[in-house]
Amino acid sequence: MSDNELILRSDHDHVARLVLNSPQNFNALSLEMIAALATELDRIARDDSIRAVILAATGKAFSAGHDLRQMQAAREDVDGGKAAFQTLFDNCALMMQQIAALPQPVIAEVQGIATAAGCQLVASCDLAVAADGVRFGVNGVNIGLFCTTPMVALTRAIAPRAAFELLVTGDFVDAARARELGLVNRVVPPGDLAETTMALARQIAAKLPQAVRLGKRAYRDQLGKSSADAYGIAGPTMCENLMLPETAEGIAAFLEKRPPNWS
Amino acid sequence: MSDNELILRSDHDHVARLVLNSPQNFNALSLEMIAALATELDRIARDDSIRAVILAATGKAFSAGHDLRQMQAAREDVDGGKAAFQTLFDNCALMMQQIAALPQPVIAEVQGIATAAGCQLVASCDLAVAADGVRFGVNGVNIGLFCTTPMVALTRAIAPRAAFELLVTGDFVDAARARELGLVNRVVPPGDLAETTMALARQIAAKLPQAVRLGKRAYRDQLGKSSADAYGIAGPTMCENLMLPETAEGIAAFLEKRPPNWS
Amino acid sequence: MSDNELILRSDHDHVARLVLNSPQNFNALSLEMIAALATELDRIARDDSIRAVILAATGKAFSAGHDLRQMQAAREDVDGGKAAFQTLFDNCALMMQQIAALPQPVIAEVQGIATAAGCQLVASCDLAVAADGVRFGVNGVNIGLFCTTPMVALTRAIAPRAAFELLVTGDFVDAARARELGLVNRVVPPGDLAETTMALARQIAAKLPQAVRLGKRAYRDQLGKSSADAYGIAGPTMCENLMLPETAEGIAAFLEKRPPNWS
Repeated sequence: MSDNELILRSDHDHVARLVLNSPQNFNALSLEMIAALATELDRIARDDSIRAVILAATGKAFSAGHDLRQMQAAREDVDGGKAAFQTLFDNCALMMQQIAALPQPVIAEVQGIATAAGCQLVASCDLAVAADGVRFGVNGVNIGLFCTTPMVALTRAIAPRAAFELLVTGDFVDAARARELGLVNRVVPPGDLAETTMALARQIAAKLPQAVRLGKRAYRDQLGKSSADAYGIAGPTMCENLMLPETAEGIAAFLEKRPPNWS
Repeated sequence: MSDNELILRSDHDHVARLVLNSPQNFNALSLEMIAALATELDRIARDDSIRAVILAATGKAFSAGHDLRQMQAAREDVDGGKAAFQTLFDNCALMMQQIAALPQPVIAEVQGIATAAGCQLVASCDLAVAADGVRFGVNGVNIGLFCTTPMVALTRAIAPRAAFELLVTGDFVDAARARELGLVNRVVPPGDLAETTMALARQIAAKLPQAVRLGKRAYRDQLGKSSADAYGIAGPTMCENLMLPETAEGIAAFLEKRPPNWS
Repeated sequence: MSDNELILRSDHDHVARLVLNSPQNFNALSLEMIAALATELDRIARDDSIRAVILAATGKAFSAGHDLRQMQAAREDVDGGKAAFQTLFDNCALMMQQIAALPQPVIAEVQGIATAAGCQLVASCDLAVAADGVRFGVNGVNIGLFCTTPMVALTRAIAPRAAFELLVTGDFVDAARARELGLVNRVVPPGDLAETTMALARQIAAKLPQAVRLGKRAYRDQLGKSSADAYGIAGPTMCENLMLPETAEGIAAFLEKRPPNWS
């Protein structure tokens, strides 16, 4: 792949690593970047050899959010940009929900800063690892644009009052506070970021892939439901998981104190 | 305004500061206090000059909850107080939800203690700043009255098991623990309480007010919904926000590295 | 009661203490253990003398989850175990929800390890006290069986991303981290575990039992609902609570600065 592509992809050990590769505009989530991500996610969804996904970025920022220059240019349209804005936010929300719907777990590997829709992208991943010193914000309010769509992902990841404070003040939090709030799972020195994230991805990729897929699907489906409805989803999934021959072997191996033969 | 009013209001720099002013009964949320708050909130909702609201209190307590003497007096009614209690809790719940529905963000400025419906009032505000040493509790269970209505606001602000522990034990937590739990955003020395809260309110009031209003409305509307439904609310709000001329100016100013001209 | 019973029950001071008593298989949640728990919970639900419940365990583990040997044996059935698995997970989910529906608060007293459905059992209780050094995990993924049903209780007790990390990695957390995450209310030295848990249960049992029952029912009913719907449940419960003669006495006693006469 050449460096002028918006998304770089490299696969190792059943892990797909996607890298936002537009450092000159802080990996802005332009229409093109959103489309490139959606395309790559769609490919991964249909690729049974991939068991975990890392979403990383090049340059000084993980992502600074939408492409403000592109958005301002749309104001020249006859409708003042209205249709373009609707398309942008529709496509963006669909891509964020594509991450949730992806069969494989997705880990954000966050360096630099993650703001506005860039912070939404982190919150939309299943897990996040951040480097010490990374700053997170949903700071659109500072330029007159409340981060309403990033809020959807953020208020589903962290406690509502902490989320509202960030949204309405435009303040940043560092990686350590982001972990306290539950936005980030692990914080490591910058030099260890790629290695730690890859180790986490490899750990997930070493599990029985069908079990992870069943589990992630049920995880997303049951969130926000009543306990009774959630058990109505989880019980049948558990039975489906148990009927896999590989799971029969996994349990047998555990009882016989030997490694499972999943080759 | 004279000191014998239940609620004192003072406006500065687009911030309305409401002060519960019944220190002799620990700012009890009597029928009259609830009505006074509802009236003032209703005025603020229709006042475009107000961009943020502070809810503070005088005396040793922020609020110790409902007016138990008033409630006991209602037991002399022919129905033993039943209708009076229904009216009280209906009016109180409506007032609490009025805070959520208010176009402007509301910050609780908490001194002393905040218990039962007083704690509910803090949890119903969008944000809270507390002085070191403040104690929070939903301790009605200690006198045989489980804090069921305060629970509604509390279990939407903090994790459910921590909330249930407070509700069923009647124990208090201090401001530092309240921040860990997510009930309070900031904890400051008592001498800095008013100034810190006002600085936070001013920070919010300096944002584009229309953006903050759109954002708060969407924040409240999307809580508890599925991600798809939440994006169905947030996307159109984002577009509405973008179509404001002030937001076009805010983004242009950012790109041109100058302050926005929102005057 | 003899030691060969699966559940030992002892009642003291209006507290029922249930002890999982199958240490030889780490208190596996076999069909028989689930049935024994369900039977005992059903008895307690109809026992007005019981005001709080402790769920404890004997041996090195609180519970290591389902009985894997029993499950593997079911694979010899003509349907490969499908019907048996459905029955197992149906019964287990019903028992877990029985804890939530129990009129009395239930406290998990956790020693050793609590994994898979054993961790679900902790998360299904209203409160949890754990000994220092206890380890929690939903580690079925390590043997090819994603902990989908434990997830239902876990994602309703702790933040979703922290839950997903545990589910997909199979990693353990210790008691201190479990408290940070909100799964556990209190962590104490192992030697203090039983005493601390009993003190908490006695504290709850000393409250007006009808108030606690009304409160717990409303707590469970209102979780996950909109604020308006939640107030629709909480308001009438508050009025019902207030109309109890014992609550009239409790409030009167408080106002008169004397202990309530609830004998």
